[in-house]
Formats: sequence, C-alpha cells, structure tokens
Amino acid sequence: MSGKADIGVTGLAVMGSNLARNFARNGYTVALHNRTAARTRALVADHGDEGSFVATESPEDFVAALERPRRLMVMVKAGEPTDAVIRQFAPLLEEGDVIIDGGNAHFEDTRRRERELREQGIHFVGTGISGGEEGALNGPSIMPGGSAESWQSLGPMLEKISAKAQDGSPCTAHMGPDGAGHYVKMVHNGIEYADMQLIAEAYDLLRSVGGYSPAQIAEIFHTWNTGRLDSYLIEITAEVLAHDDDATGRPFVDIVLDQAEQKGTGRWTVQIALDLGVPVSGIAEAVFARSLSGHRDLRDAAHGLPGPRAKALHGAEAAAFADKVEQALYASKIVSYTQGFHQIQAGSDTYDWGVDLGRVAAIWRNGCIIRAAFLDRITAAYRARPDLPSLLSDRHFAEEIGAAQDDWRAVVAAAAAGGVPAPGFSAALAYYDALRAERLPAALTQAQRDFFGAHTYRRADRDGVFHTLWGGDRREVDAG
Amino acid sequence: MSGKADIGVTGLAVMGSNLARNFARNGYTVALHNRTAARTRALVADHGDEGSFVATESPEDFVAALERPRRLMVMVKAGEPTDAVIRQFAPLLEEGDVIIDGGNAHFEDTRRRERELREQGIHFVGTGISGGEEGALNGPSIMPGGSAESWQSLGPMLEKISAKAQDGSPCTAHMGPDGAGHYVKMVHNGIEYADMQLIAEAYDLLRSVGGYSPAQIAEIFHTWNTGRLDSYLIEITAEVLAHDDDATGRPFVDIVLDQAEQKGTGRWTVQIALDLGVPVSGIAEAVFARSLSGHRDLRDAAHGLPGPRAKALHGAEAAAFADKVEQALYASKIVSYTQGFHQIQAGSDTYDWGVDLGRVAAIWRNGCIIRAAFLDRITAAYRARPDLPSLLSDRHFAEEIGAAQDDWRAVVAAAAAGGVPAPGFSAALAYYDALRAERLPAALTQAQRDFFGAHTYRRADRDGVFHTLWGGDRREVDAG
Repeated sequence: MSGKADIGVTGLAVMGSNLARNFARNGYTVALHNRTAARTRALVADHGDEGSFVATESPEDFVAALERPRRLMVMVKAGEPTDAVIRQFAPLLEEGDVIIDGGNAHFEDTRRRERELREQGIHFVGTGISGGEEGALNGPSIMPGGSAESWQSLGPMLEKISAKAQDGSPCTAHMGPDGAGHYVKMVHNGIEYADMQLIAEAYDLLRSVGGYSPAQIAEIFHTWNTGRLDSYLIEITAEVLAHDDDATGRPFVDIVLDQAEQKGTGRWTVQIALDLGVPVSGIAEAVFARSLSGHRDLRDAAHGLPGPRAKALHGAEAAAFADKVEQALYASKIVSYTQGFHQIQAGSDTYDWGVDLGRVAAIWRNGCIIRAAFLDRITAAYRARPDLPSLLSDRHFAEEIGAAQDDWRAVVAAAAAGGVPAPGFSAALAYYDALRAERLPAALTQAQRDFFGAHTYRRADRDGVFHTLWGGDRREVDAG
Repeated sequence: MSGKADIGVTGLAVMGSNLARNFARNGYTVALHNRTAARTRALVADHGDEGSFVATESPEDFVAALERPRRLMVMVKAGEPTDAVIRQFAPLLEEGDVIIDGGNAHFEDTRRRERELREQGIHFVGTGISGGEEGALNGPSIMPGGSAESWQSLGPMLEKISAKAQDGSPCTAHMGPDGAGHYVKMVHNGIEYADMQLIAEAYDLLRSVGGYSPAQIAEIFHTWNTGRLDSYLIEITAEVLAHDDDATGRPFVDIVLDQAEQKGTGRWTVQIALDLGVPVSGIAEAVFARSLSGHRDLRDAAHGLPGPRAKALHGAEAAAFADKVEQALYASKIVSYTQGFHQIQAGSDTYDWGVDLGRVAAIWRNGCIIRAAFLDRITAAYRARPDLPSLLSDRHFAEEIGAAQDDWRAVVAAAAAGGVPAPGFSAALAYYDALRAERLPAALTQAQRDFFGAHTYRRADRDGVFHTLWGGDRREVDAG
C-alpha cells in the first residue's frame, strides 16, 4: 500500500471523527483533515491508538496522503459548505478519484455535483448515513449513490464499516446513480418522522385514554419491543419514558418542552412526494405535528376551545385498550412504509435509478434510526416478489393489517371521541380505506372541476375525454 | 382619451377574451393582441358590439395603441410562455408602464419578474384571478400584487370589472408588493382543494353510511346551501349530484371516472407551507386524495383488503346523521380556513408584504370559486380584530366549532368504523385537538431526538437548552 491512506476524511466534527475511527478500527489507514488543525490533532491524540491515522494540515498534504484512486470523504454541513469543500479539493484530484459526500444533502444538489464532477472525470458519491453518532462509530446504515465504478472502489470498505443485519449481511449497498443514495436517505428520514409521530400518538393515547403513567407506558413499550414492533425507536421510547428528571423527580417526558424541532429532511420528503404525485400523508402529518407544536402563539390562543376530557380506563379495560393501540400502531406503521416505499419507487422511476426496494429494506435492517424487525419482513416481501406494486399487496402484510383493522378503527374512534389528536393514526387509516375503496368520491371532485373550470372528465364505462355543458343544456360533448 | 386604448390584453384564449370583454362592457377601450391574429379577428367579429375594441396584429401596433402609462395584460400560460411574452413586450414599453400577469404564476416567478422589470422602470403586477371563464366575463375576484403606484393606475379599472360583494364593495384590492397577489391566489386554490375534498367526504358518508342516493344528497346539499354553508361549491355539488347521465340514465357522479386531476396550485400551497412551517393538513390531504385516486395500479392491488361494509342508516337515523355531517363539514371548513389564513399571514411576514387578512376575506366574498357566506363571517372576524392570531381565536368561530365538535367527533368515528375514508374530516379534527391541547406528545418526540441525535431540548419549567447523556450516566447537561 506504499504507506498511503486508503481513505481520507475531511470535516472532523463528531460524525466525521466517528466515521474516521470506524474506518481505522476496521484496519484501514485514514488520512485526516479539518479546516482547523486543532481538531485533527485532538482526534489523533484521543484515538490514535485505535488504528492507523495520517494527520494532515493542508488540503495538498491531505490529497497527497491518499492512495490512488483517491477516496475522499467530505463530512461538512449540507449546502454551501459542501460546495466550498468540493471547490477546494476538486482541482487537486485526478481522473478516477472519488469524492464521497456523507452529509444530509438534498438529492438535487447531489445530482448537480455528480454531473459537474463527472465532467472532470471525478466520481461523486452522495451517500446517506444513518445511525447518529453512535452508528457512525460502530456501524451505520450506509446508502451510497453514484457510478458503478465508484461502488467497486468504495463498496468493500463501506461493507466493512457498516452495521450488519442479523443474517450477517452488511447494511450498505449501491442504491443507484447520482442522487439515488441521498434520495433514499431522505425518504428514510421521512419514514423516521412518521414512525416517531405514531409512537407519540400511541403514548398520548395510552396516557390520556388508557390512564397509564409514563413509567407504566415505558413497560408497555418494553413489552412491545419483544414482539413485531421490535425496533430501535420503540426501545428508546421505553428508555425515555422510564427516565425521571433529576432536578424535579418528575417523569422526564413531563419536563421537556412540548415543541418538537426538525432539520428539514422530513419536509423535503413531503415536498418531493407532492411533485411526484405520491400520497405520503403519514409523513406529512408528522411534519405538521412538529410545526404545530412550535406555534406557541396559536396554541395559547386556542387553549380555551372546548373538547371532551378523555375518561381514563382502568384495569382490564385499560389493558385491552393498550392491545388495541399496539394493533393501531402496527397497522399505521405498515401504511407509513407503504407510502415511503411508494415514494422511493416513484423517485427511481422518475430519475431512472433502478433502485432495488428489497435492497433498501435489507440495508435498513440494522444501523439506522428506523432499524426494526419489521424491515426483515419488508425485505422478505420484496425478495418474494421484486415487482410488488405496494407493500399492502404483500400477502403477509395484507393479512396482518386485515387482522389489525378492527382495533385500529376503534383506536381512531376513541381518539376522536376522547379529544386526543391522532393525525398519524387517522391519516393512515384513511389511506388504507381510500386505497381499497371500490369507488372514490374523487368522481365528484372531477365533476366539480368540469363544472367550474371546464377541466373535462373521463367516464368509467368507456374511453374518451368529455365535458358537460353545465352552463347550457347540460349535454355531454366530446372533449378529446 | 385621444382615441387610444385604456388597457390591452394579449393572449386571447377564453380567459383573456372574457376579461377583455369584461373591460369593454365596463366602458373601457380595449386593445387586443394574440400570437395568431385569427383569434383577435374572431373576438371582434363575435363580440365587437359589446364595447370598444382596438384589434392589432403586431406587438408594435398593440403597444402603440395603448394610452400612456400603458396597461398591458398578459393572459398566457404560466411559466416560460409568460417569460417569452414579457421578453417580447418589455423592450417596447416605457418607464411607468404596467405589465399585468393574470395567469396562475408561481409567486416566486412573479417576484423575479417584478424585480427584473422594476430595473427597467416598468411596473409588474402579478394578479390572481378566480372565478373561471364565467367569472372572467361577469366579474371575478381579483388579487393583484405589485407596487402601490401600479395599484393607483390599475385599481379603479379592476374594481369596475370585479365581482361585487353583497354590500356592494368590489372583490379586488391591493394585496401587497411583488408576489403577494399570486401568493394569495395560490392559497385560495389550496383552500379550494380542501373545500372540495371535504364536500367529497360529506357526499361519500351520506351515501355509504347515510344510505342516501345521489339525488337525495343533491337535496341535502341544496338545503345546506340555504344555511351557513351557503357557497358556490355547495351549490354546484347539488347541481352535479342532481344530474343524470344522458347515455345511461344513471346518476352522473356514478359514470365519471373516480380519478381527480390537479394542475399544481394545491401542491404549491402545501410545499410552500412546509417551507414556512405552517401546518396545512387539510390542503395536504386534499392533494393526496387526488393523487391517490389516480394510482389505478395501487388501488387495483388493494381491492381485496378487508374492511367493514358501512351499514346504511334509514329514516330518522339517516336524517340525524346528515345533520351531524353538516356539523362536521362546517367545523372542518373552519379549520381549513384557519390553516389557509395562517399560511397567508406567514407568507406576508416572511416576504414583508403587509397583507391585510380581512381584506383577503372581503375580496373572496364573491366572484371566486370559494365564494361563500362564510367569508362574510371571516371578514367580520378580522375587522373586529385585525391582529387575530388565528380564526379559531375569533369568539364566534370558537363558539360554532365548540357547538359542532360532538357531532364532528361522531362523524369521524363513524367513518373509521364504517370503512369510509375521511382524511379531511379527521385531519381537521386532529388539528383542532392538537391546537387546543395543554400538552402535546411532541415532548416525547423531542426527547427521542435528543436520545438518538443529541439534538437537545428545552424544559417546560425553566429557560435554557439541555442535553441528557443518554449513553452515559443520564445526567442532564447544559447545551446552550
């Protein structure tokens, strides 16, 4: 290896540092670079014994330290900072080198950067990385896009540092060309929003309707985590709910300000879904719920509005309700993933990425925030039938959601009756009922559009495009 | 007036033609221009007796025909066609002239065009026009943006051709600088989507749960149209539902293909709302419902999914249910408008437009698609209190929604139990319950974010920014 580094990481904030350490721990020689050299030195001082690092100060030294074709990983803020780093390094690189952007870039930016760098013969790999700081260090889920050649050069290394699924397979795979990796990561985050919102609603219902305390709900989530809902987010929900605030002794969840923040990927997911015509109501409601929580002024102004006080259940009734909530949560989760995978398929079709949905599910099985036993099921569904039109058309999921639907309906009704907001549960149920409906009232909507805007309509009984002369004698005319 | 035209209209498709005729019928001399002169000649041949028209063929003749400062209205397709026409005419104009874009432009395009033309001393007025073909001819609702000077020059003419509210005041007013007009029109259309979706759900519930026929539901809507729901959309719903298909003799709504189309303003509304952090779940669900209806493949794959068959009610029970649906529709409508007006306020704040929400409500009272008695109520609410934080904080609306909420909850529960998709009703109810909640489970969401991403949190009991060392001893540390 001529003593040169296998990979370089520039941008040594916590995500970059942890990834660099992960590479080093896995036997790779890692060149380090940071805008301020103090951070580079600190990393080597603190963790230099974990593997082989090459600390560099100037961009030139950094690039010179890399084995060719060079692999240069950029771990800086998305947006202009990423462009600035690319502008700095691209002139120093040679044909066949690979720049990897491991930040949360918008996939359209990734498409642009890939196009620009391709003209210089440089491979640009926009990759999603999920798992937070801990995942970056010990094994994240990695979703790289870019050219097939870049994957050949980079894939084995990513497979090594990634999380492993229970069957031992690495939680990384080539997602597709240019923006495919960041796109898949975006939808991952959108699904994460939906998962978190559904969990929040389940908690709220267990508390308000079920009458359980946070500690009791922690137990319920703990139990759920041993079943089909087994997942990282359910696990940490139990942890959070079991935690008491040191200062007050009160349940931690009760002292946290009830305003949830967001960084943008959930919003992007919904915006792109709207462009692609994909209904992602679960993700949208999750984003809206966070926005709403932050509008303190509107909430204060609405505090006096009347509503029922949910009557708390007791004993066996409460336990039966908790079981129903588990069904509702599971069914709603199936819908969220159905919507999310639909969005990945639609993006793949639109941008001609050829994303393999089964592979996406497979690499989400471990390492990432939404990791869950559930993703084994989705992986199996797509392996059994790679052209599955929708998760809901998988026989197993159809059976499960069918078995859950009575309880799911009861929970949505209980939320409505009890005055507990359950936008995620009810949006998911409405999606389910709309998708399976023989006829939708969209016919009325289209008829109205024809009435006021002459937007025409099609008929259910024969081909063609028609318009009714609403302002005249109401004859139907051919408008094709 | 030196025989010159008061205003010119270029682009003589049906909207442009009808607006030109509307100006002429109101005593203005109107110069006409179209890319192909045949259309100009046809308009003069067919309607030349309605007023004073000046037909022109070349752009130069068209511009020369206009009284200075010139008012030149562009009625072509949004997007590149609009830019092309501006590029064609701008060099022929002089300082102080006004170009009016009456198409459905995205307000960001309008902002760009206004900025570019301002540099040439030309006023650019992006204006929303609602009311369809018929409104354009007989009096639309007109929502112009642009400079104060342009409004001085143009306002009196727009006031003349616009619809009039019941109190005689014109349904047009200056919305604010640059993109304000097209922005307000965009949100108008978003609200229109929500209104139509709620009506579709009411119809669907009356049919599936209420057991009514389309003709009977037409009667119900007809009755509703005499009360607080009195509006153009309710009126035409009754018309559509009462209509039978000539070819088959069946109810028209049953022969229309149940796939609703869309042209984009609803989608834009939601996308911008996401950027601004405004929860517009009612509009989003309406957009998603249309998208979903068009996914024939997914719907076909989902047809076998299990669900209850709604049991149709009879007699007094059905009538009582219909009354409840009216309450649910009205309450959900209040929420839609609350969300829509919130979005206008947020846009106005972001772009510094100073939009007067009461004035927006006032000019929507007639002429536009969402015209309704309801808008009198909103106008009154903002007149009584111009700084109303939310429509739901108006005492009258709060009282009405409070009185409606029991029935509203019953309808959402009936939809869930009956397997009838009611995404709009249930999203509106969830918004209502979330906004009035003392505590939201957003606290749990934020705590989870702190757990997996060290995103920090605030406390409900004191200022500051905190992080809990979840991976360590779970102490709380200051993260400010």
